Amino acid sequence: MTRVAIIGAGPSGTAQLRAFASAQQAGAEIPEIVCYEKQSDWGGLWNYTWRTGLDSAGEPVHGSMYRYLWSNGPKECLEFADYTFEEHFGRPIASFPPRAVLADYIKGRVEKAGVRKFCKFDHAVQDVEYDEASEQFTLTARNLIQNTSTSEVFDYVIVATGHFSTPNVPKFEGFDTFNGRILHAHDFRDALEFKDKDVLLVGTSYSAEDIGSQCYKYSVKSVTISHRTAPMGFHWPENFQEVPLLTHVSGNTAYFKDGTTKDVDAIILCTGYLHHFPFVDESLRLKATNRMWNEDLYQGVVWEDNPKMFYLGMQDQFYTFNMFDAQAWFARDVIMGRIATPSFDDMKTHSEAWLKREATLETDEDLIWFQGDYVKELIEQTDYPSFDVEGVNQTFMQWEKHKHDDIMGFRNNGYKSLMTGTMAPKHHTPWLDALDDSMESYLQESTDTDK
Amino acid sequence: MTRVAIIGAGPSGTAQLRAFASAQQAGAEIPEIVCYEKQSDWGGLWNYTWRTGLDSAGEPVHGSMYRYLWSNGPKECLEFADYTFEEHFGRPIASFPPRAVLADYIKGRVEKAGVRKFCKFDHAVQDVEYDEASEQFTLTARNLIQNTSTSEVFDYVIVATGHFSTPNVPKFEGFDTFNGRILHAHDFRDALEFKDKDVLLVGTSYSAEDIGSQCYKYSVKSVTISHRTAPMGFHWPENFQEVPLLTHVSGNTAYFKDGTTKDVDAIILCTGYLHHFPFVDESLRLKATNRMWNEDLYQGVVWEDNPKMFYLGMQDQFYTFNMFDAQAWFARDVIMGRIATPSFDDMKTHSEAWLKREATLETDEDLIWFQGDYVKELIEQTDYPSFDVEGVNQTFMQWEKHKHDDIMGFRNNGYKSLMTGTMAPKHHTPWLDALDDSMESYLQESTDTDK
Repeated sequence: MTRVAIIGAGPSGTAQLRAFASAQQAGAEIPEIVCYEKQSDWGGLWNYTWRTGLDSAGEPVHGSMYRYLWSNGPKECLEFADYTFEEHFGRPIASFPPRAVLADYIKGRVEKAGVRKFCKFDHAVQDVEYDEASEQFTLTARNLIQNTSTSEVFDYVIVATGHFSTPNVPKFEGFDTFNGRILHAHDFRDALEFKDKDVLLVGTSYSAEDIGSQCYKYSVKSVTISHRTAPMGFHWPENFQEVPLLTHVSGNTAYFKDGTTKDVDAIILCTGYLHHFPFVDESLRLKATNRMWNEDLYQGVVWEDNPKMFYLGMQDQFYTFNMFDAQAWFARDVIMGRIATPSFDDMKTHSEAWLKREATLETDEDLIWFQGDYVKELIEQTDYPSFDVEGVNQTFMQWEKHKHDDIMGFRNNGYKSLMTGTMAPKHHTPWLDALDDSMESYLQESTDTDK
Repeated sequence: MTRVAIIGAGPSGTAQLRAFASAQQAGAEIPEIVCYEKQSDWGGLWNYTWRTGLDSAGEPVHGSMYRYLWSNGPKECLEFADYTFEEHFGRPIASFPPRAVLADYIKGRVEKAGVRKFCKFDHAVQDVEYDEASEQFTLTARNLIQNTSTSEVFDYVIVATGHFSTPNVPKFEGFDTFNGRILHAHDFRDALEFKDKDVLLVGTSYSAEDIGSQCYKYSVKSVTISHRTAPMGFHWPENFQEVPLLTHVSGNTAYFKDGTTKDVDAIILCTGYLHHFPFVDESLRLKATNRMWNEDLYQGVVWEDNPKMFYLGMQDQFYTFNMFDAQAWFARDVIMGRIATPSFDDMKTHSEAWLKREATLETDEDLIWFQGDYVKELIEQTDYPSFDVEGVNQTFMQWEKHKHDDIMGFRNNGYKSLMTGTMAPKHHTPWLDALDDSMESYLQESTDTDK
């Protein structure tokens, strides 16, 4: 029997489980599947943990999630085509759910699909090797509860561990003697730790944007955002400033490239993440940066050097959950022989066309259409339910505009589901005033809070 | 040619390098040695880094060191028998040096011995396997700069990675929603982060004792120390209190077993470290706790199941640097055929006698004499320079008394070197007032500061 290993049970890994379950429900015989997950439950980054650094078994903490995180994109852009928010919650909900609500949604689909039995929780994959002779992989995993290691043989391996877990942590002069806290966004947990503080954010990514907003919502004293190339340019509140690149720190003072300085209590490095797969043999190891198209992956999924190996979700992302689905369905169909991978040269030629287009991308709009086209190409090749990708692209455009109009208010907007056609209701409380991020609070009917 | 791998170039690994160099200087032919170190320099925990969590290559940060750390034991108890403080610094120095001074001392010895050429820095060992047929080890390491992995074959492997790097992080109810910072002592870096804060320490180990004192020295608002079995019982300052075990937290309030509560800004888990060797095959993996005698290690050093494998410094420690030396000299002599290891059963019998004595130990005094006797037994078997171990034991006793007399002042005492007989001079500034922990400041002559 064909054996498939999935590494990771987050959004990508569970999409893969769901893809196989869907084929099985339609009557196909599916391979034997083992999904290794080092956390004690599925959900990946969408599980919150107060832990930072190393977990109770000495493994790097996977989570980069922080308290009070609300989706920073409309839920209508990430909705599963085969399991809508309305199906899960029994009614329409507002467009920017907090973490717990999204986690519940992701998990609801796979609970319903009955695929928990395929998962080995508390198992960290340590090593994956490919044997040319047997054409099989040997995968070694550590049982984190018992501290034992065991090896199993597989015909296919799917890496679904994400790429927002291993922080990219640059060093600036003077960090060794800075008299305050220095942390990477990966270790940010609770904005209240920074109440009444002067905080410096280094970077202009989503992390900087959202952590800055979080800190504002929970009463930071000031936020200074240092950029390498250009400021983000949102209409920030009065206690924000955007400054050029940090050059060095001394004592509690940060120095910037334009000669200005700022005394700060904490420095949060919003400097991105590394694609980090030390647990696979070097010959199988994707070496990538956070970009729209990764080299060496046919259709953004198949490891060209060995098409029995797959990577999910390794792109920079506008599209998320439904793109992972499109990729998982594609990987499934390659494994099940429904899709034939072309020769190495033909795979390279196919990738080169995408890489060429990637090089022409300039605006966010370009990136969104690029990724939309990619998703379309994938779903055309499988039985993943077709959906209005261009409608999703348009929703992203509206969202970008709303952010630029009002960075602290964009989450008060609602969008139409591309899956059900339903318009999202307004949330009962503006985001800036909604300090309780629990699922109970979010799902309360407006009338409850009006009482 | 016999090949030896040393994993780690901290105090234990460098002791091993020095042991081989010493044999070579005496005219012996030594094996080929490769010492793998994941940091960019030797010194192990004695290198300070501002980093926490994962390093720039995605590896767990080894360092548990914090700024302003001064030795918590007299330097006279850890002095190398073959390289004294007076030799290194050219004159006698005071008894409780800050981190940078001790780091300089450790490194000075191995620089002088010319053993840097054996070290592969920026290399993290990923896997060690033993092959019964060839009777050799295959060691795989990742080059952290190039992100490449390579394997080499060795006849002997010495694990010298220490056991104060992988935090033991227990969970308490309510941590998920605590509105402040929670960290393990491993991630404590600068006491100034906690200035004017109410801090809760969980644990009564050296970490709690010293981090509490650090926070006091750098103007913490209050320190609450929670113990499982008994309070430490030092004469703490007025803004300290010792309380029973933490039961849970809610908001910013910590609840203790006796029903009392305390509102705190930060919780520092001083809850010890794990013996963590995921990089060696399970059949070679020491599974141990922090105790005076480890099972499975003959003479506290030789892996009984395979006497070609060694572990250094795995005990709970009063003795440190000179005990690592005694162990390294012993391992060297086993490898060089100067010491024969007995049969498996005889090794077990030998260990059992020590384990039996370990079970009788009650007071710190008992522990110190136990470890002194262990060190004596080791050095009697090699050419490591003999020294007055009982004199060291007595120095430990004096130190214990000084701590119990004055926890914030014990570092102002001086002790006599057991190697040179010289009495340590008084330091120019009482520890509590010496806010600058640099080597320059420490080595200043008293007269300089009197001006």
